[in-house]
Amino acid sequence: MQWTKVLGLGLGAAALLGLGIILGHFAIPKKANSPAPSISAPQDLDLEILETVMGQLDAHRIRENLRELSREPHLASSPRDEDLVQLLLQRWKDPESGLDSAEAFTYEVLLSFPSQEQPNVVDIVGPTGDIIHSCHRTEENVTGEQGGPDVIQPYAAYAPSGNPQGLLVYANHGTEDDFKELQTQGIKLEGTIALTRYGGVGRGDKAVNAAKHGVAGVLVYTDPADINDGLSSPSETFPNSWYLPPSGVERGSYYKYFGDPLTPYLPAIPSSFRLDLANISGFPPIPTQPIGFQDARDLLCQVNVSVYNRLELRNSSNVLGIIRGAVEPDRYVLYGNHRDSWVHGAVDPSSGTAVLLELSRVLGTLLKKGTWRPRRSIVFASWGAEEFGLIGSTEFTEEFFNKLQERTVAYINVDIAVFANATLRVQGTPPVQSVVFSATKEIRSPGPGDLSIYDNWIRYFNRSSPVYGLVPSLGSLGAGSDYAPFIHFLGISSMDIAYTYDRSKTSARIYPTYHTAFDTFDYVDKFLDPGFSSHQAVARTAGSIILRLSDSFFLPLKVSDYSETLRSFLQAAQQDLGALLEQHSISLGPLVTAVEKFEAEAAALGQRISMLQKGSPDPLQVRMLNDQLMLLERSFLNPRAFPEERYYSHVLWAARTGSVATFPGLSNACSRANDTASGSEAWAEVQRQLSIVVTALEGAAATLRPVADL
Amino acid sequence: MQWTKVLGLGLGAAALLGLGIILGHFAIPKKANSPAPSISAPQDLDLEILETVMGQLDAHRIRENLRELSREPHLASSPRDEDLVQLLLQRWKDPESGLDSAEAFTYEVLLSFPSQEQPNVVDIVGPTGDIIHSCHRTEENVTGEQGGPDVIQPYAAYAPSGNPQGLLVYANHGTEDDFKELQTQGIKLEGTIALTRYGGVGRGDKAVNAAKHGVAGVLVYTDPADINDGLSSPSETFPNSWYLPPSGVERGSYYKYFGDPLTPYLPAIPSSFRLDLANISGFPPIPTQPIGFQDARDLLCQVNVSVYNRLELRNSSNVLGIIRGAVEPDRYVLYGNHRDSWVHGAVDPSSGTAVLLELSRVLGTLLKKGTWRPRRSIVFASWGAEEFGLIGSTEFTEEFFNKLQERTVAYINVDIAVFANATLRVQGTPPVQSVVFSATKEIRSPGPGDLSIYDNWIRYFNRSSPVYGLVPSLGSLGAGSDYAPFIHFLGISSMDIAYTYDRSKTSARIYPTYHTAFDTFDYVDKFLDPGFSSHQAVARTAGSIILRLSDSFFLPLKVSDYSETLRSFLQAAQQDLGALLEQHSISLGPLVTAVEKFEAEAAALGQRISMLQKGSPDPLQVRMLNDQLMLLERSFLNPRAFPEERYYSHVLWAARTGSVATFPGLSNACSRANDTASGSEAWAEVQRQLSIVVTALEGAAATLRPVADL
Repeated sequence: MQWTKVLGLGLGAAALLGLGIILGHFAIPKKANSPAPSISAPQDLDLEILETVMGQLDAHRIRENLRELSREPHLASSPRDEDLVQLLLQRWKDPESGLDSAEAFTYEVLLSFPSQEQPNVVDIVGPTGDIIHSCHRTEENVTGEQGGPDVIQPYAAYAPSGNPQGLLVYANHGTEDDFKELQTQGIKLEGTIALTRYGGVGRGDKAVNAAKHGVAGVLVYTDPADINDGLSSPSETFPNSWYLPPSGVERGSYYKYFGDPLTPYLPAIPSSFRLDLANISGFPPIPTQPIGFQDARDLLCQVNVSVYNRLELRNSSNVLGIIRGAVEPDRYVLYGNHRDSWVHGAVDPSSGTAVLLELSRVLGTLLKKGTWRPRRSIVFASWGAEEFGLIGSTEFTEEFFNKLQERTVAYINVDIAVFANATLRVQGTPPVQSVVFSATKEIRSPGPGDLSIYDNWIRYFNRSSPVYGLVPSLGSLGAGSDYAPFIHFLGISSMDIAYTYDRSKTSARIYPTYHTAFDTFDYVDKFLDPGFSSHQAVARTAGSIILRLSDSFFLPLKVSDYSETLRSFLQAAQQDLGALLEQHSISLGPLVTAVEKFEAEAAALGQRISMLQKGSPDPLQVRMLNDQLMLLERSFLNPRAFPEERYYSHVLWAARTGSVATFPGLSNACSRANDTASGSEAWAEVQRQLSIVVTALEGAAATLRPVADL
Repeated sequence: MQWTKVLGLGLGAAALLGLGIILGHFAIPKKANSPAPSISAPQDLDLEILETVMGQLDAHRIRENLRELSREPHLASSPRDEDLVQLLLQRWKDPESGLDSAEAFTYEVLLSFPSQEQPNVVDIVGPTGDIIHSCHRTEENVTGEQGGPDVIQPYAAYAPSGNPQGLLVYANHGTEDDFKELQTQGIKLEGTIALTRYGGVGRGDKAVNAAKHGVAGVLVYTDPADINDGLSSPSETFPNSWYLPPSGVERGSYYKYFGDPLTPYLPAIPSSFRLDLANISGFPPIPTQPIGFQDARDLLCQVNVSVYNRLELRNSSNVLGIIRGAVEPDRYVLYGNHRDSWVHGAVDPSSGTAVLLELSRVLGTLLKKGTWRPRRSIVFASWGAEEFGLIGSTEFTEEFFNKLQERTVAYINVDIAVFANATLRVQGTPPVQSVVFSATKEIRSPGPGDLSIYDNWIRYFNRSSPVYGLVPSLGSLGAGSDYAPFIHFLGISSMDIAYTYDRSKTSARIYPTYHTAFDTFDYVDKFLDPGFSSHQAVARTAGSIILRLSDSFFLPLKVSDYSETLRSFLQAAQQDLGALLEQHSISLGPLVTAVEKFEAEAAALGQRISMLQKGSPDPLQVRMLNDQLMLLERSFLNPRAFPEERYYSHVLWAARTGSVATFPGLSNACSRANDTASGSEAWAEVQRQLSIVVTALEGAAATLRPVADL
């Protein structure tokens, strides 16, 4: 509460001084030049430092970062991407504002690009084979930034090349159900070109579903109803508004899995074993091409799609930087953002990179001045090749699996920092909820009024918690950004932070220029976040979370907040699956017991921590408790639970295809068992999945008990 | 050195006082009643306490323990086994000499027993179907302990029931090659009964190999040449010598895997999912029965084997007891021995249980007196149903996977404590070598002369180490006892300790009465270890190792001792596979680099530790280093490396079937690729296995670097 006032002053100062350094305004009692605290001292979160950091995170600097970052397209592995690697290294090695050390880690990964010689084409063909109309090969050069050799042609990465020709069939989202519906209507799908719109299912799924019905090629367009709140004329779209121009085309990866496609579970270093191209799974089976809604509207009858995509082995780098912890250097607070974009990527991902650079500058400056060094290590990461399938982050987790799994306190992801100006949006696992709440309660929300970020957030996303009453609602983590390998493969408590929309004002599926050549600096500066106050809000939120995680004596991970999730999964299972399971003589009793045991142990641990916090506990004692908190999430991993789901090992957050919102393994197995005629084997899998969850919960509860209890 | 003298005194005292308590002789400066050291104090190994423990470990008490433990047969899940659970609980809860707490953990597991109504029979059948000769159904009641209802009939646990009849074929060890050889000789195997002898391959493999050739039933006998140094007459065998009487039959489990057969990867608690019997893999495919050599000699021509084994779900318990650590209670030194025997099991396993009880008594007494409490927790385990396939220990690791994997410093196994009187024998992973050496150098060897256990050991098992010169040679850990789930499934540094033979005096495959009704107290008392000094030597060795691991400020795990192993694996790969791999364009270069990197990082870590030991390091700093040491072994686990080898995840110690003594995955894949005609896929697997090892070594090296290095 206290420092929201200081923050007001900070904003004024920043405005006055522009790029000037505003340190003087936050005169804090300067400590001696050497901060080196006695190593066992119970160094704790320093609220003065926190205030200083919050005050110094500068919207204007974020804006300047973004201008530089988004000046040129920086597709993964492009020369400009490589330039940005150097920019990050230079910033992180700066003697005045850099980190303790920084390094680039390079992988050789399989990417997919359109041919430079033969652009992909989509033509309407007349009855005699003549071309009646050709779709745009590039987006219209509206602002001067949509032209030039570095703007990559819209394409579906990893779609195979080929030039199918056939009748056009509109297939809605291209879901399994959409194609079944067409079949029911008597429409012949064999040999056709399916026109689908983005949304509903993953990009690659559209081609997978289509191919099952004999479809020869797939087009994917962006529907103005989904992205532009129905608006579609040039005068209503960028650069006249934030909406997508008619020629805009969403690029994207159509790969089903994540990580380098050639080296699953192995780091893509040059010496690693690589699959034969013929043995890769997860690529779209048929030629696929995205188009704009202008072209989609014009498409008629017979269409020819020519895709000339090529697979290439390319070098792609992660850049890592570290601030070494003063007391527990072997505990890592890991903060990551990807660097590569499809074109200029001002929003995706450079809004996040601009925030990353500002955060590292402010913390690096305090570090280099000798004012501060965190208790635990802080690791900053700039991931490469995220757009092609979270490749850089995944390879990193493969290369350093044990080191990261044993030592990482939490992973904080900021990909797109700002989708829009309305509210914070956080996805994360339950143990991070409390630290996010603590941080956001203390930061003023941008925009009118005097709300905290927390109080503003709760207006947009909220839920009624049986424990806390009305609270902001955290979303759950899917696999949409670089947090995926950390939560699903390594079992590290993770979160993803952004500012986002007021849903009462737009129904846009995502910000309209997503993955197009219109995602530029001016787009952000004029429409998304003029003044960059939402960027600053994200920087402050992330900064406060980083400091709380790295500096607090007791780790601010509240494991008992998992109890609500488990209870809700259990209730869903009881209500929506209970009768069905009973019919098959499967009891939920052991699951009930396991959830109750977890709840009791988590609550008891919480009480022990509260007791200890009242005294002056020994650093080693606190370390032991912190290890229990840090490692809880690992207990939910079982690498043998879902052998066919690559990387997914977290038995609570693995992908759920079943309709019941319960434990994913149980939900999915029930859904399959109910569908299938085969019977007993499918029901045995339901029982196996239930036992896997019970074992994980019982095992998790055991890790929360006093450490020397049997 | 100092306390070998004290030890002499201790031995005298023990002899004088018999069962009396000899504490007074080791008057140590008694500390105040509450030992509670300041929790952060660098509590370190106390040599006085070590001396006290060594002196108090009493051969006579071990003998009395053994007499009680082996008084009755205590087959897994039998009433007497249950009595011993109570005995352990009573000892471990004793107010004068017990532990902090003790508890039984019970699982419901699938065991296999001969039918009580219909004994298994092996008959020689005449041409008209008449029975010419029947094999013994029980062993001869030579000492009065081979009769009675609790002496289970010799049988092959988990062999299916059935009564095949056919011509007898002698098949040596029953290896794959043995059956191929018979086929080459033109001997028809279809429908025959194979007579095989123990040894050469695992028990269950004999039936698996036989069934592949159409053999209908398998007999397995103990050959006097293998077990009795050729002697076979009653006058030359027990009770006149340690050799096996003609009627003796080795029982044993014929299950291929370990753990409860119905619940792989899940704890066998009542609620866990259980496989359908039809889906169990790893049981012998055809009826199998073990017999004695007396009967084996008499077998002729047509034989009928009737097996009536039955599978039963039974309760089997582990008993766990703990001494809570004073400073780092969340670090566990785990010491285990199984409790169940086939019959009286005086050697297997009660020699180990007798030692376990004496160790817990001595440490428990110091604890209860308030003289001592270890820095870390010590956990004692009495495993159930080991004989059926390491079932109790495996279920325990399944139930408490994360807790154990995160916190266990090392696992020490003593199964059979004493095979014979000649020398120590230790199997273990490299990080435990140094602590075993340190302990054994300070303990006097039993028997004549004034050698240390170490100096005696080196006379029997030694190797020339490039680093240390001539040293005792540690064997590697297979899957022969309860250490298997700890090393292979959890990646915990493990060791197995016993006293064993002078190989110049006997070629017995194992002690001759192994798994027979002749393995009794008198057998041990008269032939194996009169005076129980070898038992005492094992108790002292294990006791010293436990104290060193639980009390030393710096963990005595020397990770750089892995370098020798890696180097030797690498050299074997280069010498014996290099040319072959080159032919297939597979380079060992990355492996060379990875081994070198490991060596360098391990050496550097060793140096950092040495430096730190010279100062007065902070407990938290030491904890961080100790975590690196403790967790190194985990880096070698990859649960996706050998998907078909149940539980085996350790990429250095998984079962090796290939002939080249290198990394098992590489050795096995090369062997298969070389055998197979299929070609490219098999060679891709070689490359994959090589990358798995390289990734593990690089990952391991990364965990050894300074913790805040990128």
